[in-house]
This record gives sequence, C-alpha cells and structure tokens, in this order.
Amino acid sequence: MKHMNNKLMKGYKFSSFFTATKNNKKLKIGLISIEPYGECVSAFTKNLLKSNSIIVSQKHLKKTDKIKCILTNSGCANTACGKDGLKITEEICESLAKQLSIKKEEVLIASTGVIGEPLPKKVFISSIPQLVSSLSNNKSSVINFARSILTTDTKLKVVYKRFKNNNILCIAKGAGMIAPQLELYKPHATMLVFLLTDIWIEKKLMEKLMKDTIVPMFNSFSIDGDTSPNDTIFFVSLGDKNNYKLSMTEFEKFSKVLKFVCEETIKQLLFDGEGVTKVVKIVIENCSKENAEVLARTISNSLLVKTAINGADPNWGRILAAIGRSGVKFNINKTDIYIGKHCVVKNGTSNFVNDNIVRKTMLKNFFEIKIDIKSGKKESFVFYTTDLSKKYVDINSKYKT
Amino acid sequence: MKHMNNKLMKGYKFSSFFTATKNNKKLKIGLISIEPYGECVSAFTKNLLKSNSIIVSQKHLKKTDKIKCILTNSGCANTACGKDGLKITEEICESLAKQLSIKKEEVLIASTGVIGEPLPKKVFISSIPQLVSSLSNNKSSVINFARSILTTDTKLKVVYKRFKNNNILCIAKGAGMIAPQLELYKPHATMLVFLLTDIWIEKKLMEKLMKDTIVPMFNSFSIDGDTSPNDTIFFVSLGDKNNYKLSMTEFEKFSKVLKFVCEETIKQLLFDGEGVTKVVKIVIENCSKENAEVLARTISNSLLVKTAINGADPNWGRILAAIGRSGVKFNINKTDIYIGKHCVVKNGTSNFVNDNIVRKTMLKNFFEIKIDIKSGKKESFVFYTTDLSKKYVDINSKYKT
Repeated sequence: MKHMNNKLMKGYKFSSFFTATKNNKKLKIGLISIEPYGECVSAFTKNLLKSNSIIVSQKHLKKTDKIKCILTNSGCANTACGKDGLKITEEICESLAKQLSIKKEEVLIASTGVIGEPLPKKVFISSIPQLVSSLSNNKSSVINFARSILTTDTKLKVVYKRFKNNNILCIAKGAGMIAPQLELYKPHATMLVFLLTDIWIEKKLMEKLMKDTIVPMFNSFSIDGDTSPNDTIFFVSLGDKNNYKLSMTEFEKFSKVLKFVCEETIKQLLFDGEGVTKVVKIVIENCSKENAEVLARTISNSLLVKTAINGADPNWGRILAAIGRSGVKFNINKTDIYIGKHCVVKNGTSNFVNDNIVRKTMLKNFFEIKIDIKSGKKESFVFYTTDLSKKYVDINSKYKT
Repeated sequence: MKHMNNKLMKGYKFSSFFTATKNNKKLKIGLISIEPYGECVSAFTKNLLKSNSIIVSQKHLKKTDKIKCILTNSGCANTACGKDGLKITEEICESLAKQLSIKKEEVLIASTGVIGEPLPKKVFISSIPQLVSSLSNNKSSVINFARSILTTDTKLKVVYKRFKNNNILCIAKGAGMIAPQLELYKPHATMLVFLLTDIWIEKKLMEKLMKDTIVPMFNSFSIDGDTSPNDTIFFVSLGDKNNYKLSMTEFEKFSKVLKFVCEETIKQLLFDGEGVTKVVKIVIENCSKENAEVLARTISNSLLVKTAINGADPNWGRILAAIGRSGVKFNINKTDIYIGKHCVVKNGTSNFVNDNIVRKTMLKNFFEIKIDIKSGKKESFVFYTTDLSKKYVDINSKYKT
C-alpha cells in the first residue's frame, strides 16, 4: 500500500458511498469503473445457496466477458431474501448501466453481509448518481472503496505490486464465514476479492492463471470452516490494445508476482480473521493430495486443535485424534507430527518432547504444524488455519441482533 | 438417582481411589466387580487412533465375553504414549486379576484424560489392594465411582431405572471431545458409558439391543465434533442363571426402558458439555437417512450456527449456508427451516418472520431446529447438538498446561 502511486491504475476508477437502510442498518456501497473495458475471469462459491448478486453476475458474464464496472455492497448479503430479491438486483444494475451509458450485462455485482434481507432498492438507486460522479483513480478513492466492502474486518486488505511499468492491485474483504471452496465460473463466499491489473492479458492466459494459481491458493485456507454463499473473485485485466500486453515469455514472471499478491492478500485475510490471534500453516506430507486435503481440513476445523492453538497448549494428542477421526484410511502408527521444528509424535506415539519447549513455538503468532503420513505417495498439501478465541464467540453470538 | 435403593444391584460392587501421579497430576481410579460374572457386549470408537485400554479390552473380549471386572481411570487417556504403554496396561490388568483371583482376560479397562502419557504403573498397582478391599454395593460407592471417571464434567452422570424386580444402571462421563461415532466391537471415545443390569440377558439379545438401540442413540449427538480415541460403551448383564432372565415376551418392554435410560444419559452428557448453555434437537425430514446425517452433522459442527445458538440470534442464514456447503446434493430452493414452531425459511428463502419472536424460542435452554428437504424420500434423522460459548474456549485453551 505504502508504495502505491497517487494515480496508480490506468483505466480503473473507484468510488464509495456510506449510508444506512430504513431500519438504520449500515449499508456501504462501492463502485469500480473500467475504461475502455475489463476482460474478466471469475470464480464463485460452491455453496448450493447463492447470493442474487452472484446469480445476476453469472447471467451477465454469460452474455459478455467484457465488463465496464463492478458494483459492491456490504451490510446485506442479498441472499435468500424472497422472490423480489432477484428483481431488485436486476433493477439496481439497470439503473447503474443507464447512468454510465453502458449495457446492463457490462455490470457485475458482489455483496456481503447478513443473509435474508433484499438490497434496499431506494437507498441503492438514489446513491448511484453520487457514486458515478465521485469516481476517481487517486489513492484515497481506492482506500475508501476497500473500506466500503468490509464487515467484521478490522483492517483494510489492499495489496499493490508493480509489474514492468504496470500495476497489479488486489482489494479483498473477509473475516468470518471464511473457508473458501471456489469453482471456476461457478458460485462460492463471503470472501470478496477484486484482482485488477492494467496490463492487457489474453483471456486464455487469464483462465490459466485463475485455474492454476488464484483458485487453488484461495481454496487453501480457512478461518471458521463455514463456506459462504457469496464468495467471489473477479480477476480483471484492462482491455486496452494500446497497452502493454503480457507476452508468453513474461508469463512465468507475471505468475510469480501474482502468486505473491495472492499470498499477501491471504495473509491479510487470515490475520484479520474474526478474533484471530494466531495463524498456523498446516503441511501434510507423503500422502495423496486428495487425502491430504481431508486431513488438513479436519485439523483446521477441530475445535480442540483451534483452542489449543489459542492457548499455545502443546496438546498434540488433539491433532493426532483429529486425523484419526478424519475418515481417511492410513497407517496412524507410521505418522510423525512436527510443531515448528519439534517432532512431538514419532510413528504414531509420543516422542516425549518437553511441553515447555514446544510451547515457545506456539506462543508465536505464526508457526507450522507438519504431518508426515509416510504413505509412499510423494504428494503434499499446504493449508492455513487460525486459532479459536473467546473474541470469535463474542463477535458471532451478537453479529446480527 | 433419587430413587436408587441403598443396596441396589445384585452382583455388582464399586470402588474408587483418588490419587496423583509423580508430576502431581490428578489420577482417579475406579473399579466395578461382577459376580459370578457379567455377559458383556461392547462398542468402541471408529477413530484410527486407539487407547491402549481399548486395545487390551478388545484382546480380552476376543478370549471371553464373560467378564468379572472393569477397571477405569481419568486423568490419562493411555493413548499414543510410547512403546511401553501397552505393556504397562497389560501389567496393571494382570496385577488386578491376581488380587481378585480371576483370569487376566476377565478384566476390562477404560481410560479418559490427556493423550500422550502412559498409565503411571507404580501408582496404579499400589492402589489395587485398597480398590479391591473397598468394593461395595452401597449407593455412596456407586456415586464415588461415577465421580472417579469425570474429567472436565461438572456433574455426575448416573441414570437408574427399575425393570420388574431388577435394575438398570447407567454410569457415564463426557463433556469434551464428544462426537461419538461408535462401531460394534470396534474402537471409538472420550465418552465412557457403563450400562449395567442385574437381569440375565442372552448374548444374542444383548447384541441386538446394542446394535439397534444403544449405538444409534449414542452416535446421534455431538458437543464439539471431535471424536475421541477412547470412546467406550460396556453393556453388561449379570451371568447368574438363578436370576430373572429376560424373556422374548418382555423384550420390547425392556427395550423401551433401556431407550429411556440411554436418552436420560445423553441429556446429562449434553447439558454438562464443556461450556454448554443450550441444547438443540436437529430434525432433518423427507431426505435419505445418509444425506440427512451429513446435513445434521454439518449444522451441528458449524461455528457460526453454534455461536448464533449461544447468543439466541435468529440468524437462520447461517443454517441455510451450512446445509448449502455440506456437499449433499439437494434442491435448496425447496427447503423449509423451522426454529421451534416458526417457519423462518420457506422454499429456500426468507419467510420474513419477526426476529424478536424467533429469539424468544432461542432463549430457552432446549429447542428444535427442523429442516424439511422435501426430496420425496420419506426418511428422517434426529441429532442433538450444543452451543459454543466463551467458556468452552476458556476450558480448552488451558486444559493441559
């Protein structure tokens, strides 16, 4: 963020509008405009429940992948909110398209907030003229946009990186209901990620980046194990043929920078997770990838492991018990467990390492738990999780009411 | 408990011994003796990780199902505790068998506590003479035995019921690591259940009761979703041929009483779960049993649902989002959700019921969440879960250290 130029991104402008619904609930609206247009590749939640914002965006993306703006809001998930919910979403997009003199299908929309209420149509539509007139590409409009998508987040999530003479900017939100399981072109969230660049990238290459880099990375962490019906990633490159075009020779280099941007964004999401005090990297080694993912997710979702992490309690028995109940068939009597560099379990049983030594590692706000399954399969899997604190319970037992 | 006779159970005697290990950790040992012998049917955890106590009990049960005593302890799970762990367990059983002049395989053993430490052999063996000499069938020895198996439990779990002129007594423990997934004759834990009767029941009938009544009931609730490597149910009938023998004509009646005893025990386990303030009955209707179980367990394990229950927050969107991410394929747009008698979701979307009305139901310490999948399948599934409180986090972030 600190290295971000004052006028950074060719083609992109940002604005935001902070208001309230008639029930006096906070509603924050954001807008990104893209000129001449953005080439968009997207990924959405796998949840069967889908936000109307996702349904409408998918409908528009079927008609065109050349998009001209992204409308966002926090405070209302626009999900499971009655038969008018979808119609209201369409009407809001229409109104915005008219104001911008673009086609309706060139508008994408993404929402986050409480499930069960439709978007407040009047408030939304009346805010559109101001949103459009205040569009700007200066730093403060980016920051205010990033602020407009937050819910229980306590920090902005903005990652900015130069590539050649161009830019990659990632703006995200997400603190709870975070266990992304995204599918390409299909619904998944409430993690919202807007990954924007003013480089011109061919659609085929964008799809490759989405499939091989972006989706696998954002599917490899969890805060609370609850996958939201709103999760959305929009990856947008600038459709300006006069612009720098990503060449095949630069592709690998660009991939690396993109990976760095995703990594930084995920770190920001994890450390700002609801009530999070610690982030843990889980590494499952020498195990088929499929099984490794089940093992990692089981550890990640275990309340007893999450509370032990919270208390820096080297109670590795909870990790061993969690993998034992995961449903994966493997030889637990061959399994080793490391906390940081300490091998606490050797061949499925205690390695009798002093608790106080292991505790020192667990007192850090970031450390690694490694499980070596020794199955003969040479695959591995990395997953990130967080602790479970009293503050998490506090936040979520009074979120809505 | 209040109706329990002073000298209740023919054939059964109880004792207990409260001591400490050399590291000054609490160790509580309990003993049940059965004369002339008990006919035993058992169920253990499905967890791949197994307590040495389960390994030894299974070995003994392969040799004989006519058992003469059950040795228990809390404070040490006797799991994943090095290569000597199994040997120590065998030696302790041998020492007890010698003291009681019975065969080693007539001893069963069940443990609960922290994973990773072997049973403290010296302390255990030196306590055996006192355990044996203090065996008694009076009420206080039952109560002290029930106390000796507790860990983070705050209340005794004892259910007592008459059947004809005979008795059924169930003693249990379990407050955390509670999501039983028991298999007959196979390992599962740390719920310990000792279901004892002084009626003489044929092995075949006992197996039927275990399979059709006891195991399904104890597999239908969860406190924290973590299935323990120590879960054990011992169902024991008195091998005394002079005694009342359960006849086929009385079988249905006995089943009902047994069901009541299991239900009461499960209620006691749920309401005394770690940090529990509310218990919720989850009913999944009109859905295949297999899918219904996945849906019920997903709701039960959702941190967002559990914290909403804690806060009596009628945030039904979290329930809908949880079933949407469960992996079960069904038509979410046909699904209804009831909280108590209030239909909050109709055909997959808000039924716009006033939050304050639903909140009144959720303020009770027991209520029902019903999901009607309307799949055409006429099956249903009932599962019990609890809320997640700050106290749970408190207990489990400092359990071991």
